[in-house]
Amino acid sequence: MAEKSKVLIIGGTGYIGKFIVEASAKAGHPTFALVRQSTVSDPVKGKLVENFKNMGVTLLFGDLYDHESLVKAIKQVDVVISTVGHMQMADQTKIIDAIKEAGNVKKFFPSEFGNDVDRVHAVEPAKSAFAVKAQIRRAVEAEGIPHTYVSCGCFAGYFLPTLAQPGLTAPPREKVVIMGDGNAKAIFIKEEDIAAYTIKAVDDPKTMNKILYLRPPMNIYAFNDLVALWEKKIGKTLEKIYLPEEQILKQIQESPIPINVILAVNHSIFVKGDGTNFEIEESFGVEASELYPDVKYTTVEEYLENFV
Amino acid sequence: MAEKSKVLIIGGTGYIGKFIVEASAKAGHPTFALVRQSTVSDPVKGKLVENFKNMGVTLLFGDLYDHESLVKAIKQVDVVISTVGHMQMADQTKIIDAIKEAGNVKKFFPSEFGNDVDRVHAVEPAKSAFAVKAQIRRAVEAEGIPHTYVSCGCFAGYFLPTLAQPGLTAPPREKVVIMGDGNAKAIFIKEEDIAAYTIKAVDDPKTMNKILYLRPPMNIYAFNDLVALWEKKIGKTLEKIYLPEEQILKQIQESPIPINVILAVNHSIFVKGDGTNFEIEESFGVEASELYPDVKYTTVEEYLENFV
Repeated sequence: MAEKSKVLIIGGTGYIGKFIVEASAKAGHPTFALVRQSTVSDPVKGKLVENFKNMGVTLLFGDLYDHESLVKAIKQVDVVISTVGHMQMADQTKIIDAIKEAGNVKKFFPSEFGNDVDRVHAVEPAKSAFAVKAQIRRAVEAEGIPHTYVSCGCFAGYFLPTLAQPGLTAPPREKVVIMGDGNAKAIFIKEEDIAAYTIKAVDDPKTMNKILYLRPPMNIYAFNDLVALWEKKIGKTLEKIYLPEEQILKQIQESPIPINVILAVNHSIFVKGDGTNFEIEESFGVEASELYPDVKYTTVEEYLENFV
Repeated sequence: MAEKSKVLIIGGTGYIGKFIVEASAKAGHPTFALVRQSTVSDPVKGKLVENFKNMGVTLLFGDLYDHESLVKAIKQVDVVISTVGHMQMADQTKIIDAIKEAGNVKKFFPSEFGNDVDRVHAVEPAKSAFAVKAQIRRAVEAEGIPHTYVSCGCFAGYFLPTLAQPGLTAPPREKVVIMGDGNAKAIFIKEEDIAAYTIKAVDDPKTMNKILYLRPPMNIYAFNDLVALWEKKIGKTLEKIYLPEEQILKQIQESPIPINVILAVNHSIFVKGDGTNFEIEESFGVEASELYPDVKYTTVEEYLENFV
């Protein structure tokens, strides 16, 4: 069996990054995380970095904006996974520059972990946000850097505990607001499963220069069906308030940041159905649950069971 | 009287940008907005662009990532105000590059419109977000570009309609969650007033290479006092739930994006008091309500009256 690639995660202390770091280490990849020296003593992220060390992850001190530190880190690995957040999304050009200079990278995963930004029908301000990710794809391709884009639908941990109802800490038990007609299908995947599928793709030639779509069949739901599933679980019918698209667009226009961004992203997912409204074609994509049936993903039904 | 400077707003269709565009036009500055051609037909932002035209604003088609369009736009004006959002924050280096090439800019306002990022005590992930803004300041200074940084505290429209209670659409009438001990003072300013003060600074030499702090005396409140004011207005005492800092840090660590960012920003504002916990010194700053007493700002008390 071939040796497992050495993996560097940039943005490893971020929301999805920490799951990827853990999945990489657990899968037996020599795993490296680029962290800032100051992160070690941060009251929020310091413990996370400590956990990384306990998992056997090698900490490399550096910064996206320190070119030399980036090149030095990249030279030590085979595969680079970026999980940087929105503020650094556009600056992944700095990672691309460093990968070019290092010259040794077998595969790069830019920070994606949402819907396929080349196939969304979003309105502003989400449109511009998605365009930044698309721009990074084009830069990766222009440089001929071997890559995989992970298109994972919705983070279960963000959407399911509240059924996408802002301000709640548990799924609703009285009434639920449904965007549009509730028939567009969305995909919800547990963060640990997103990480597991991503790490599976690291050394898999079938994902080379492809989009890896995460569409586990048990996790694709129209919002109406998600509500019906929840109603069945709690044995109660909820009052349903349908928000017409016109009204959503008005809300987006009138809402302060970051509410406007959240609403516009939800509009793309739940009204336009951008996670599921196209077929995956061999020319550009592969599907993760087909490729890796051994990943025992958590179904939406199992996930919701925690909140009954 | 000297002619009013020509002003270009980059990010003018964004949340704070649209107020700045309007304030600039109203103040009689020849006003230009850089917009993407695609924005004109966007269901959310199209109407905004139409409004700009009706105000006499000149639309310049271009993009932050299209260097030539940026240089061309900048060459037509005297002052550049950036109001780009978080995704483009770091890429203001592209504006800096274009300003250098154009060579004609009398003053640049990078996108700030929050607390003074050189004087915050934030934890991750807010810490990194603020660091990006600070980096842009350093780049502006390194290039010797004349500038003003607008430090405005909290957007009233984001915090006051809900008293910073997530998920509400009106201020609370039963119970309120207070971060920390509720004694740290924060500043809340109506978006139109932020824009008015910013535009006042455009041609004011007193703000040259300084931080313009917006601290109107009637708008500085400890959270406890804000709640007391609201209670007085509605003639009712709310149940108060105090969240100790330890618990907030734990919540930040466990929350999905973007909740973790919002919580960490609120921690900086409401627990650390980063809007008010230092004196403005002549060497680095000036205060807007002192400099421009003719701006009749909306007080917090007046603002809350709308929700009684």
